[in-house]
Amino acid sequence: MSDAVQALLNGVPLAESLLSSRGLHYGDGVFRTLLKYNGQLLDYKLQFLKLAHDAQALGLEPPATELLLAEAVSVSAGAASGVVKILLLRSGAGRGYAPRTDQADRLVLAYPLPAYPAEHWQQGISAFRCGLRLGRQPALAGIKHLNRLEQVLASRDWPDGAAEGILCDERGAPVCGTRSNLFWIEAGRLHTPALDGCGVAGMMRDKVLACATALGLEVRIESRPWSKLLDADEAFVSNSLIGIWPLRALEQRVWPAPGPLTLRLMSVLRHPYTAT
Amino acid sequence: MSDAVQALLNGVPLAESLLSSRGLHYGDGVFRTLLKYNGQLLDYKLQFLKLAHDAQALGLEPPATELLLAEAVSVSAGAASGVVKILLLRSGAGRGYAPRTDQADRLVLAYPLPAYPAEHWQQGISAFRCGLRLGRQPALAGIKHLNRLEQVLASRDWPDGAAEGILCDERGAPVCGTRSNLFWIEAGRLHTPALDGCGVAGMMRDKVLACATALGLEVRIESRPWSKLLDADEAFVSNSLIGIWPLRALEQRVWPAPGPLTLRLMSVLRHPYTAT
Repeated sequence: MSDAVQALLNGVPLAESLLSSRGLHYGDGVFRTLLKYNGQLLDYKLQFLKLAHDAQALGLEPPATELLLAEAVSVSAGAASGVVKILLLRSGAGRGYAPRTDQADRLVLAYPLPAYPAEHWQQGISAFRCGLRLGRQPALAGIKHLNRLEQVLASRDWPDGAAEGILCDERGAPVCGTRSNLFWIEAGRLHTPALDGCGVAGMMRDKVLACATALGLEVRIESRPWSKLLDADEAFVSNSLIGIWPLRALEQRVWPAPGPLTLRLMSVLRHPYTAT
Repeated sequence: MSDAVQALLNGVPLAESLLSSRGLHYGDGVFRTLLKYNGQLLDYKLQFLKLAHDAQALGLEPPATELLLAEAVSVSAGAASGVVKILLLRSGAGRGYAPRTDQADRLVLAYPLPAYPAEHWQQGISAFRCGLRLGRQPALAGIKHLNRLEQVLASRDWPDGAAEGILCDERGAPVCGTRSNLFWIEAGRLHTPALDGCGVAGMMRDKVLACATALGLEVRIESRPWSKLLDADEAFVSNSLIGIWPLRALEQRVWPAPGPLTLRLMSVLRHPYTAT
């Protein structure tokens, strides 16, 4: 990623490999966040499959699974548990939007494990409805790409005590959390919004859907009005780090959390945070 | 922008100031591109005003104009002419979408002058209609921010001979070029699309509008159907590097380029590429 460019960062000359990255300049890349727990990179095969899917959606060649795994293991070798974030950034420096290659640079980062309160799993979380509505862009819907300004703006006015914000589409239908996928249960059926216009399809969403069908639950993947979420019998959010957080409170609605079907799904998911 | 994070770039350990940048991870920032010509940073006052406007739209504190100017002059000191790109990236490392500061890091880059063919000004350019349609997001519309994946995807299938791609909104109305703003002239009136749902408001768009009113032209800023663009008497695109490129061909439409009013606007604009 070398470049003949001159650069100052806060006034100091800078010669960095990321300086001209299309990831920085355009967000031209995709990412996944993995949980490492007790030395294991959880669900890395499914994570890499989804990373490859998203890369291909942007016209990027996904790296070999063995290479990604080796780098994820290496970068996180210092800690038995933590977070590994893998970014694929379209290679090549220079200016101009038109992509000149399908090659991707791999940026693999290791972070400490976030310290979430145990109550989030045991008693559920309070969530709020974000003021910002997600724009509709079918070409990017569902993809975990690096253009995340909507999530940043939606997270600006975060109420005290809330652990997640729920995002709606432009018609006001719920889509997902700022960093999670959204589910609710109505009359024994599991509902989750379709992600064909906006939203991000997390790895844990796939796992929750798989667990639900394994449990014999009927599953509906479709856009539904906000009122359907508030009227639900149970609701929860999911992502790869938290597994499932039951929703306890959202606007005027209060649920017993975790609800009975949420609890069954949590138990089948066997996420390390809830299994311990 | 330091961080305790461990990182590998293509397998090689990396310790960089941009590694944890919210610019890289979320596109949480804004930018402007300036033309330096014969030692002058053209229109830097208007550019910095627009940069500050966009920064505030994301809740970022704009840096002092004197500081930006000093850094732009310094980084480009090696060449009398070239391109200076200024990025404001929300400060602070760490993870999580919620912004914790309104402070911005300044990344100022100098590039060589692009080599555009003189015919682009003298005889106009051929353009094409991009397949990708811009999503509607009023919270980001008009802002020159770092989430530019739509422009990247729209530039993927670039026909030979085309110098610009024209982007439409989800209803098919023309909005702007992939890296330019769009104008057309119909019955002596200057039209340019409103940018309240999508698109980027370039500095040169403001200058063109100012020149048009100075010339006594009637100006209409509104969304119009694609057919209105094709039916126009003249059309052109603008940005800070090129000034104005007349449109010569777009789909089945061929215009004499530059048209008479486009030529008058070009002459009032006095952009260095066309003035020489």
